[in-house]
Amino acid sequence: MIEVLNKMPRLGVAVAGLGRIGRLHAEIIKVWVKDAELVAVVDVIESLAKSVGESFNVKWYTNYDKALQDPRVDAVVIAAPTFLHKDMIVKAAEAGKHVFVEKPLTVTSEEAMEVKQAVEKHRVKLQVGYNRRFDYAYSKAKKDIEEGVIGKPLAYLAVARDPDAPPGWVADPKLSGGIFLDQLSHDFDMARWLMRDEIIEVHVVGGAYIHESVKEKGDLDVVSIVFKFANGAQGFIHGTRKFPYGYELRTEVFGDKGVIYVGTNRDELYARGTKDGLTYFGAPWFVKRFYDAYVNELTSFTKAVLEDKEPECTVIDGLRAVQIAEACWRSVKEGRPARVILNP
Amino acid sequence: MIEVLNKMPRLGVAVAGLGRIGRLHAEIIKVWVKDAELVAVVDVIESLAKSVGESFNVKWYTNYDKALQDPRVDAVVIAAPTFLHKDMIVKAAEAGKHVFVEKPLTVTSEEAMEVKQAVEKHRVKLQVGYNRRFDYAYSKAKKDIEEGVIGKPLAYLAVARDPDAPPGWVADPKLSGGIFLDQLSHDFDMARWLMRDEIIEVHVVGGAYIHESVKEKGDLDVVSIVFKFANGAQGFIHGTRKFPYGYELRTEVFGDKGVIYVGTNRDELYARGTKDGLTYFGAPWFVKRFYDAYVNELTSFTKAVLEDKEPECTVIDGLRAVQIAEACWRSVKEGRPARVILNP
Amino acid sequence: MIEVLNKMPRLGVAVAGLGRIGRLHAEIIKVWVKDAELVAVVDVIESLAKSVGESFNVKWYTNYDKALQDPRVDAVVIAAPTFLHKDMIVKAAEAGKHVFVEKPLTVTSEEAMEVKQAVEKHRVKLQVGYNRRFDYAYSKAKKDIEEGVIGKPLAYLAVARDPDAPPGWVADPKLSGGIFLDQLSHDFDMARWLMRDEIIEVHVVGGAYIHESVKEKGDLDVVSIVFKFANGAQGFIHGTRKFPYGYELRTEVFGDKGVIYVGTNRDELYARGTKDGLTYFGAPWFVKRFYDAYVNELTSFTKAVLEDKEPECTVIDGLRAVQIAEACWRSVKEGRPARVILNP
Amino acid sequence: MIEVLNKMPRLGVAVAGLGRIGRLHAEIIKVWVKDAELVAVVDVIESLAKSVGESFNVKWYTNYDKALQDPRVDAVVIAAPTFLHKDMIVKAAEAGKHVFVEKPLTVTSEEAMEVKQAVEKHRVKLQVGYNRRFDYAYSKAKKDIEEGVIGKPLAYLAVARDPDAPPGWVADPKLSGGIFLDQLSHDFDMARWLMRDEIIEVHVVGGAYIHESVKEKGDLDVVSIVFKFANGAQGFIHGTRKFPYGYELRTEVFGDKGVIYVGTNRDELYARGTKDGLTYFGAPWFVKRFYDAYVNELTSFTKAVLEDKEPECTVIDGLRAVQIAEACWRSVKEGRPARVILNP
Repeated sequence: MIEVLNKMPRLGVAVAGLGRIGRLHAEIIKVWVKDAELVAVVDVIESLAKSVGESFNVKWYTNYDKALQDPRVDAVVIAAPTFLHKDMIVKAAEAGKHVFVEKPLTVTSEEAMEVKQAVEKHRVKLQVGYNRRFDYAYSKAKKDIEEGVIGKPLAYLAVARDPDAPPGWVADPKLSGGIFLDQLSHDFDMARWLMRDEIIEVHVVGGAYIHESVKEKGDLDVVSIVFKFANGAQGFIHGTRKFPYGYELRTEVFGDKGVIYVGTNRDELYARGTKDGLTYFGAPWFVKRFYDAYVNELTSFTKAVLEDKEPECTVIDGLRAVQIAEACWRSVKEGRPARVILNP
Repeated sequence: MIEVLNKMPRLGVAVAGLGRIGRLHAEIIKVWVKDAELVAVVDVIESLAKSVGESFNVKWYTNYDKALQDPRVDAVVIAAPTFLHKDMIVKAAEAGKHVFVEKPLTVTSEEAMEVKQAVEKHRVKLQVGYNRRFDYAYSKAKKDIEEGVIGKPLAYLAVARDPDAPPGWVADPKLSGGIFLDQLSHDFDMARWLMRDEIIEVHVVGGAYIHESVKEKGDLDVVSIVFKFANGAQGFIHGTRKFPYGYELRTEVFGDKGVIYVGTNRDELYARGTKDGLTYFGAPWFVKRFYDAYVNELTSFTKAVLEDKEPECTVIDGLRAVQIAEACWRSVKEGRPARVILNP
Repeated sequence: MIEVLNKMPRLGVAVAGLGRIGRLHAEIIKVWVKDAELVAVVDVIESLAKSVGESFNVKWYTNYDKALQDPRVDAVVIAAPTFLHKDMIVKAAEAGKHVFVEKPLTVTSEEAMEVKQAVEKHRVKLQVGYNRRFDYAYSKAKKDIEEGVIGKPLAYLAVARDPDAPPGWVADPKLSGGIFLDQLSHDFDMARWLMRDEIIEVHVVGGAYIHESVKEKGDLDVVSIVFKFANGAQGFIHGTRKFPYGYELRTEVFGDKGVIYVGTNRDELYARGTKDGLTYFGAPWFVKRFYDAYVNELTSFTKAVLEDKEPECTVIDGLRAVQIAEACWRSVKEGRPARVILNP
Repeated sequence: MIEVLNKMPRLGVAVAGLGRIGRLHAEIIKVWVKDAELVAVVDVIESLAKSVGESFNVKWYTNYDKALQDPRVDAVVIAAPTFLHKDMIVKAAEAGKHVFVEKPLTVTSEEAMEVKQAVEKHRVKLQVGYNRRFDYAYSKAKKDIEEGVIGKPLAYLAVARDPDAPPGWVADPKLSGGIFLDQLSHDFDMARWLMRDEIIEVHVVGGAYIHESVKEKGDLDVVSIVFKFANGAQGFIHGTRKFPYGYELRTEVFGDKGVIYVGTNRDELYARGTKDGLTYFGAPWFVKRFYDAYVNELTSFTKAVLEDKEPECTVIDGLRAVQIAEACWRSVKEGRPARVILNP
């Protein structure tokens, strides 16, 4: 058996979309994912595709369709803008390639349904990049909750404060899904995962108070979302597109026997005391904070494909996050609670 | 002028209702409020009235009406159960006595309106005991916000976790106003005060998950309230009638240039590291946490009466808290956001 | 038996020396120590004695000897400058009065020995005001250590940073004992108490770096003391007469199975985040930090006298602290470790 | 110009000694140091050399001398046991190879002097692996101190607690230098670097209290070191070979205008509150805590060689650490302060 395992071919992976996150995924596959091999990179910008390809010493493409024809490519990591996800996933599925797609899955739930049908039809694996599931601290929360350390979980609370206005195409909610999908769907996924339950209704209070760029495009920059789980538990997420120093990400889960706290608003490792007080600085930005989680999620995806198992964050998980974000937008527009349309 | 000041009579104060908080107020007036004099204590339970009166060496009454006839009594501190507040305040006003009333002002807004009319008609001062306004940390928040340290305040968030189920009459929401009025009206008052704005709409998700005693009486023990301010800012309060160790009270105010954090979930002064990790214990319980605030509020009340000034937490402030709590109950019953009826 | 207890006379206490700490002790006896009665206050400054006496409504003296003749005085609390302690204690003992003396016991060990003989000869109780023994956090450390939570205690470490240069007579080490006795003897007492062992050798590195006033008088303002306990354990105390914001006091005890941490360098209850980082401010100054400890130590002293028991911080404890401080001065002068002369 | 830069040859590096740290260095050179190329690995254990070589796809040697003859090797990273450092460095120098040597430089100062002469004679670069100099938090401390944020630095304090007894050859102080050199020379280097001054005298109190293995070999497991800097400032380091959960590393620098705090005793990112209190767990172990610092130091070394500059942590820095550790051992043996023999 050992020989067989040793001979198991490594998974050939192409990374498509070479922005910050795409390059990060490429680096991680190149360096850290033992059973995967970075075989190609893809970006429509030739200079980018070329320089990244050369720096990793792999084949580079500007044409995604061609990359999908590359026989060495077993799977694609899609890190292109959200509004391109649906087409890219469908094409990959049609080409028989497995897919790891950066969160969120798609911009709309209709797109997500198309994606679902495609991957089911073509029997390829799909994993959505909700990386916090693979972070040690959130994983510890999950484990403690599952083991009953806090009793029955009754409330999920989260604060997520990004440093500043979303850049580029992300600023347009029609392309990115806006604050609810682009930023806060991480928290929806965590809420569902940690509470092991579906969110069924959301109510949002929010506004575009800070950034003109956000307001212009119809997005929001400070939102408070209160929600209900199917089993009666409750949740709250507060998100902002501004934080004065660094980045803030805190989650707590309240149970009838205990409380879990994840995250912090400061870097505990350095402080400076002067006559003005004791000053801490920002906690590490997400690339550093979640580097291990990125490694773990791609390792997990690779394993799921090679061992033919269900990925740990499925197309349904991706769909749910989109559905919840859509409900948030409906709540904003109607000024009242909105049901999450959980279909299927 | 100096002679006049020196001769200024101290304010004669009676404390009515000698439960935990009533005795605390009596102690504080006796010991710490320079310009007030504890002249009487009142409780319907004779043994209690007698023992407290003797321990403070002051006159004691079991009959509130008689106490109000005592010419040495200039003002009463009402620390009786909430459902008695309205009658006691009205009687005090009719007797020409100034009133310091423990929070909340009354159980209902109708009662609060009666109270308002009585104190206005009889031209007595009334201060409501929202003591956090007088706490150094919340005061620092107020000062920083007013000075623009965090820019424009856009969101108020609070977590308030009491150790356990409410005891005695407090357990009955018809007598105490339930979790929204009895426990969380402190946070409504803080929200209005720190944001310097009115709360106009609330939406509640909550349940009675933990305590049978709470469920039986129709109260809730875990609630999440999201709300809107008149100027468009947003708020959130999470309250529970259970906390596994100690007591948790945290507030943050997010502005477009900064964030204020008040409160903690642990006692920073002691930690024990063993193979099981590093363990902190509960932060001080409210009597200790807010002792100085209790002293300050009674000192402020005394000053307001003696100098004929508007108290720092008025009948309108008390009324607002009741109105917001009533809106919370409506939201719970109707399962949707409820407007706060800001009248007058 | 109950009648006897009920009839037990309260302890009549005079406070001698009405500086900040003397007034604090007077207030605490007046207000918080049930079985003691403040019967007199004493200070050589007539205006001070008079105003404090009147504010507490007790007899006031400018002549300590006369106060000792007052038959209502059963015990004296001595809060005069350290260099006066010896004479005042000896006189009190001769007059048959019990003594509570602010730390340190005396300036020199010779004086301490005189004191010891006097209180033994006249069979009066003496308690030294090392109040941290009565603080809840240090008490919790004591309890945890005694219960074996950290295994065998192997090292005591402390950092004590006062805000600024010592004022008035305290600046003169010949009158106050200097930094080792005046400031750090608290830590020597804690070290002995928590480790339940004697300090037998000290080695000091230090200097007068910051304050001219300190240097002129021959005192030091930044010192590091490493020491040995009789049983082989080790200790370290770092003290400064300067701290840029507030006040810092931290202690840790390392054992072979765990570590205890007491104290903090910031006020956890308030923080302000701006573009410059997250700023905390100073922890409460000692009067507030240790108010309860002051109440507890005087309550304990009162009980020791009324019940004829050994006080919790004895003349020997006071003597040891003086002996250790003296050894520190020898170490400084000789530039090498100095034995603590533990006699008797 | 760009062509020239592009043609600049990458530095060919061999890693000799493939224990935990050696493999870490190999990984970092392979993956993260742009201008270096991992060309060979060396270990006397053939199976280890082979497996590491194959996993990195580089040449592997069991014979160090042969590796030094490899013309592709421009520099060696020496991560073998300390007692082998001297010979390995001298040989490398003789072969004209630059040297990056893991801390400490050598076991004795005599060896360090030999090393010094060899690298000077053969004009090769040598950098010692005191990686904390390249950590972002310690670097921030350095920058703040240099910019005067805390005024004049007057005291350096550090606590360093390793999880458990040293394994293998490290347990023998004759081979590793013992606790002072193997564990705490990091802190000596930090003290010299942050205070920008030489340590001239040390006094140690310590013992072998916990581990039989430590006691048997003549090493210590709990030590407290107080020391003097040439300019009169003071220092203190407390080190233990035991910590009940995780790992503790804290440093503070006290100046006349401020205090810097680096490090923590807990992982701030996760806490669990139950009826037993609020529990935090260990901060990341050094490999994770200092991963970036390891990358930075090797990048810096590579740059120093390629650009012919003085490395950031020189043979003199390495020698000083050895000299201080030797003084600590003398202090332990003689029971009194020992001068650090700063020669040259």
